[in-house]
Amino acid sequence: MHFTSQQHLDDGVLEREFTLGEIPGILWTPASASAPVPLILFGQPPLGLRKMYPRLVARARHSAAEGFATATIELPGSGDRPRWPAAEQARADLRRAMDAGEPVSDEIIDALILPLVEKAVPEWQAALDALLSLPEIGGPVGYSGGVISVGIRLAVVEPRIVAASFFAGSFVPRAMFEEARQIAIPLHVLLQWDDEGNDRQAALDLFDAFNSKEKSLHANMGGHTGVPQFAGDAAAQFFTRHLK
Amino acid sequence: MHFTSQQHLDDGVLEREFTLGEIPGILWTPASASAPVPLILFGQPPLGLRKMYPRLVARARHSAAEGFATATIELPGSGDRPRWPAAEQARADLRRAMDAGEPVSDEIIDALILPLVEKAVPEWQAALDALLSLPEIGGPVGYSGGVISVGIRLAVVEPRIVAASFFAGSFVPRAMFEEARQIAIPLHVLLQWDDEGNDRQAALDLFDAFNSKEKSLHANMGGHTGVPQFAGDAAAQFFTRHLK
Repeated sequence: MHFTSQQHLDDGVLEREFTLGEIPGILWTPASASAPVPLILFGQPPLGLRKMYPRLVARARHSAAEGFATATIELPGSGDRPRWPAAEQARADLRRAMDAGEPVSDEIIDALILPLVEKAVPEWQAALDALLSLPEIGGPVGYSGGVISVGIRLAVVEPRIVAASFFAGSFVPRAMFEEARQIAIPLHVLLQWDDEGNDRQAALDLFDAFNSKEKSLHANMGGHTGVPQFAGDAAAQFFTRHLK
Repeated sequence: MHFTSQQHLDDGVLEREFTLGEIPGILWTPASASAPVPLILFGQPPLGLRKMYPRLVARARHSAAEGFATATIELPGSGDRPRWPAAEQARADLRRAMDAGEPVSDEIIDALILPLVEKAVPEWQAALDALLSLPEIGGPVGYSGGVISVGIRLAVVEPRIVAASFFAGSFVPRAMFEEARQIAIPLHVLLQWDDEGNDRQAALDLFDAFNSKEKSLHANMGGHTGVPQFAGDAAAQFFTRHLK
């Protein structure tokens, strides 16, 4: 992990960009912390870090004020990271199906998501190794948002993640429902009730599949990008309950 | 409205029992308030005020600390209030169906709930008239919990109620779904995902039917009485957002 830039934001948050091999990432830490702090990993949608930056930094400031370090890395195939032909094909197939108003087939969803999960999860684990080796970061570790299938696999294979907040707003391969049944950590699941790109019943089925004794579904009105401010506050309270 | 007793609880809450005609009720106010305060009506399940008192007073203390007055009245046919034969019959039919593991028919649900709604809602409105005439209570007014069908009808007919929190945990006559479509105030709906006495799909359909632009569904694990503490905190934050 190499830090490539750093700046102090005006509210006492230290923002550092880094690379982990070829993967760009950002780490935010509360500059005033005197002891190692818990960490929240911000999962990514496949839109690219640069596009997501304004929302990420707002959440990072909020989390730093609560005493959390936060970090994120670019997904494979997003931002400036190299695409691979099968993913480009799957994206084109998805666009074609949606433009035609057709249901998105399981084949398209599998081709779109499963390779992304396979590639991304080991990268998140490598990032976690590097982040936890920093003296200012202790634990425990939470995972928040992004492509829900990446979060599910990561929660299954990575015992250092003790609580997770998922956004039920992306296509989920059927195979991931089996993995969801293996998750027993506390979960906080956001659902936009009228999400135009999401199958509500599938999201409810997925919530039902998680094996966690503590899991909460927070459904709110509005489309995919219309998550209300108070829903973000509730997710923050979830992490404060479980990581402090 | 006649106050029949009053006591100061140890955390600066004034608790007053009252009768409104034949109906017993309780009012809690923050003793330190210097200006009229908003009011939250605590809806009742049909278990009797005396049985519910420990949970009610805990919520009342919490609300008073946030600057709210809270009040409740006994439902018709509950506690020491007179039963009526049709309701007794409906309760017996319900018990028989549940003991036999049979689905509870629409006829039983209608007989159980609709007369209760018809009787209870005008009483809540009369209580609201009396409570709002007290100098220490201003507004706005919220309604929280209890038999959800009573809350739905009250929200439809009573414009002084500006926000409501419902517990999707009781039988709902089909006719109430039509009334739900007339509700446009902000709603906060609690659902216990594994509620043994509740049809989960019906609860989701009811949530979908509300016409409110702001409505949130908070689903948590556990049975009917297993609502976690943090779910109560989230409902309290909902009222703070809308009544302050």
